[in-house]
Amino acid sequence: MTRQLHLNAFLMNTGHHEASWRLPESDPYAHVDLAHYVGLARTAERGTFDSLFLADGPQLWGNLAQRPAGALEPLTLLTALATATEHIGLIATASTSYNSPYNLARKFASLDIISGGRAGWNIVTTAGAEAARNFGLEHEPAHAERYARAAEFVDVALKLWDSWEDDAIVADKSAGVWGDDSKVHPPRHQGTYFSVAGALNVPRSPQGYPLLVQAGSSEDGKAFAARYAEAVFTAQQTLADAQAFYAGLKARTAQAGRDPGHIKVLPGIVPVLGSTEAEARAAEQLLEDHIVHAHGVDRLENLLRLEPGTLELDAPLPDGLPPESAIEGARSRYTLIVELARRERLTVRQLIGRLGGGRGHLTFAGTPEQVADEIETWFTQGAADGFNIMPAVLPSGLDAFVEHVVPLLRARGLLRTGYDGRPHQTLRERYGLPRPVNQYLTSLPALV
Amino acid sequence: MTRQLHLNAFLMNTGHHEASWRLPESDPYAHVDLAHYVGLARTAERGTFDSLFLADGPQLWGNLAQRPAGALEPLTLLTALATATEHIGLIATASTSYNSPYNLARKFASLDIISGGRAGWNIVTTAGAEAARNFGLEHEPAHAERYARAAEFVDVALKLWDSWEDDAIVADKSAGVWGDDSKVHPPRHQGTYFSVAGALNVPRSPQGYPLLVQAGSSEDGKAFAARYAEAVFTAQQTLADAQAFYAGLKARTAQAGRDPGHIKVLPGIVPVLGSTEAEARAAEQLLEDHIVHAHGVDRLENLLRLEPGTLELDAPLPDGLPPESAIEGARSRYTLIVELARRERLTVRQLIGRLGGGRGHLTFAGTPEQVADEIETWFTQGAADGFNIMPAVLPSGLDAFVEHVVPLLRARGLLRTGYDGRPHQTLRERYGLPRPVNQYLTSLPALV
Repeated sequence: MTRQLHLNAFLMNTGHHEASWRLPESDPYAHVDLAHYVGLARTAERGTFDSLFLADGPQLWGNLAQRPAGALEPLTLLTALATATEHIGLIATASTSYNSPYNLARKFASLDIISGGRAGWNIVTTAGAEAARNFGLEHEPAHAERYARAAEFVDVALKLWDSWEDDAIVADKSAGVWGDDSKVHPPRHQGTYFSVAGALNVPRSPQGYPLLVQAGSSEDGKAFAARYAEAVFTAQQTLADAQAFYAGLKARTAQAGRDPGHIKVLPGIVPVLGSTEAEARAAEQLLEDHIVHAHGVDRLENLLRLEPGTLELDAPLPDGLPPESAIEGARSRYTLIVELARRERLTVRQLIGRLGGGRGHLTFAGTPEQVADEIETWFTQGAADGFNIMPAVLPSGLDAFVEHVVPLLRARGLLRTGYDGRPHQTLRERYGLPRPVNQYLTSLPALV
Repeated sequence: MTRQLHLNAFLMNTGHHEASWRLPESDPYAHVDLAHYVGLARTAERGTFDSLFLADGPQLWGNLAQRPAGALEPLTLLTALATATEHIGLIATASTSYNSPYNLARKFASLDIISGGRAGWNIVTTAGAEAARNFGLEHEPAHAERYARAAEFVDVALKLWDSWEDDAIVADKSAGVWGDDSKVHPPRHQGTYFSVAGALNVPRSPQGYPLLVQAGSSEDGKAFAARYAEAVFTAQQTLADAQAFYAGLKARTAQAGRDPGHIKVLPGIVPVLGSTEAEARAAEQLLEDHIVHAHGVDRLENLLRLEPGTLELDAPLPDGLPPESAIEGARSRYTLIVELARRERLTVRQLIGRLGGGRGHLTFAGTPEQVADEIETWFTQGAADGFNIMPAVLPSGLDAFVEHVVPLLRARGLLRTGYDGRPHQTLRERYGLPRPVNQYLTSLPALV
């Protein structure tokens, strides 16, 4: 079989375009509507996507006036979606800066058990002072410190997920012996950020542990991904940039002593479809016409750490912006946006239009054939193992992708036509990854 | 309509009797089997129970050898059960000592939205050093400190649940205005245990906030319940004790300035049913015969803070046990067990037999008529507003209760015959409680 694309559906209320909620067909209450998300999940499953994904941060973003704010907590929503679907992977974002390893490891193990091995964790360190102030801190922790804590957090979580061997339950009713305590391994972890003594209070889950996903592309982020990540979401604006990122991350992963085939790279793409290219461009223009530019200026000033009132709509970005290393927040996103504006000589207004669709991810307006061509090119030219599909408008954009682009990808032999496995593959199996061996294993696993 | 019973189904893997997993019909893997819990939830819904409930603690209890250990995380499991049921309330235990208010408030609001207003929170402070050591502490926090933190935790959570007014979403597409920021109220809380600046990132939920439930019966626990709880689970061994507890808690609630009708008292009962009294006694004896007494001695010594090897199976409890005030753990349970042993002059073996069924809750073996009589007596004699039903064996014990006891309670006019409401009542409505007014309300609510 030819190498297969991995597709992830990145779900976000009425869509990834910031003005999507203003379209006549959009439900401005979609962000808290379970039925909306069930519909999206089933559509993605009909399109034989590998997984779906929810972004998150433990703070209320921006102003309510500007666009839909707030969301159902991802692990909660994905648990509900687990019961409404059969095959698709379920990837939740959760922060290592504002959770404790014991509670979070337990929740992911629970979701993995309930979903039959379909859980994934998008590991984030959570930029911004707003989140910090919801958890007793006055300031955002420094970028490097957030990543150091993240590494220790994941190490502890892995110990917890391995703290029961797979065969720790004996269930000998006649002898009255339920489990084998010699197969339970309390982490007894004492580290810089955490001390966690006891074993997890849930058995090892079908996948051993959830698929580990990462999305930051800063230097710290790439080092972290090379060490831990099994799938990486990334924002890349050009094929050349994506190829460099792809080759660099695979090389780093090999240097970290891991199989580079065990880290899957999925750039984000915002497809805007039309039956002709002109129709697609018109759909893109319609969305851009609904942007409130004053809101875009607010957000851009905030992201670039500029004083309010600094930016002018019809001028380019000012000179003398700080270097990436001076940014404690979302570093790689900062650099991508500044480089995009410089490279394409965009005015602030044009930059806001470009960012409105995907917050730095590649927006691509075209016919289904053109979108399939773009995906195939990146996939076959060393830029991607698959894509993070980010429809500009939901549900219509996902419907259109599944109805018009998925059949083309299948016809080209790039995408599965159905799900394998009885009753189903785990998410890790679908991404071509092995089930992890328990780090505490006291006896050899049975040969399969 | 006559006053109606409130029934809560307390679900626990193969049942509340510690030896239940050893019966031939029991599934020793039930604790991680979603289908098992879906079956139980649907049975409770067929019995028109008000709610179901999951206990929890963030640590692995005891030894695996002794009995089933570990469980799916309650909020995760209840979210899955929300999608498998339509009416029944869903009460999750979560600790104020080992969670942060922002994350927990978000999860409960999410479950309340997903379930259409059926979420409840059993607020626990979590006794024991084992849990403390999973969260960076060396020792269990003192009893009084745990309760002080719990009070501040709930105060912060209430601010977060009120941080969006119900009509904060405007959804004016043509003007491009999604929400009204003047109706969002960041808590800006700075307290002893928590500082939480920002508003919650999810809108106010159908119930405003989840039903608040409490289960500790120590002095600190009763003071806490009088101030916050809307339903109270309690372990009472005799009608007289239950009457005293009931009257005392209602009086305290009134003293705290609340309507005593707005706190519902539900003692636990472990019904063991038989078609004759002799058959019920035989079923109870069968369970007792499966107890491994050495395990019971271990646990009793642990609970009473005695050195291993102190207790003798066929002797009474030793003299000179410490007073309740010296116990930093589960105080009210400690006192109940010591008093039960003294009052009924039980040997350690007999005490283990009595505790095996319900860990201090009332075990009642009898015919359906006898169980219904006992429930009616407590309900009409000022001892209970309803019951926490804790079947000794699951699923069979819940099946039997719904098939044989529920029809008797309905025939006596004590229990609803169906669920009210279109599409359904919220959990708070079912318990006869008002939807809370938002503490930050800037305009008068519409008259309903």
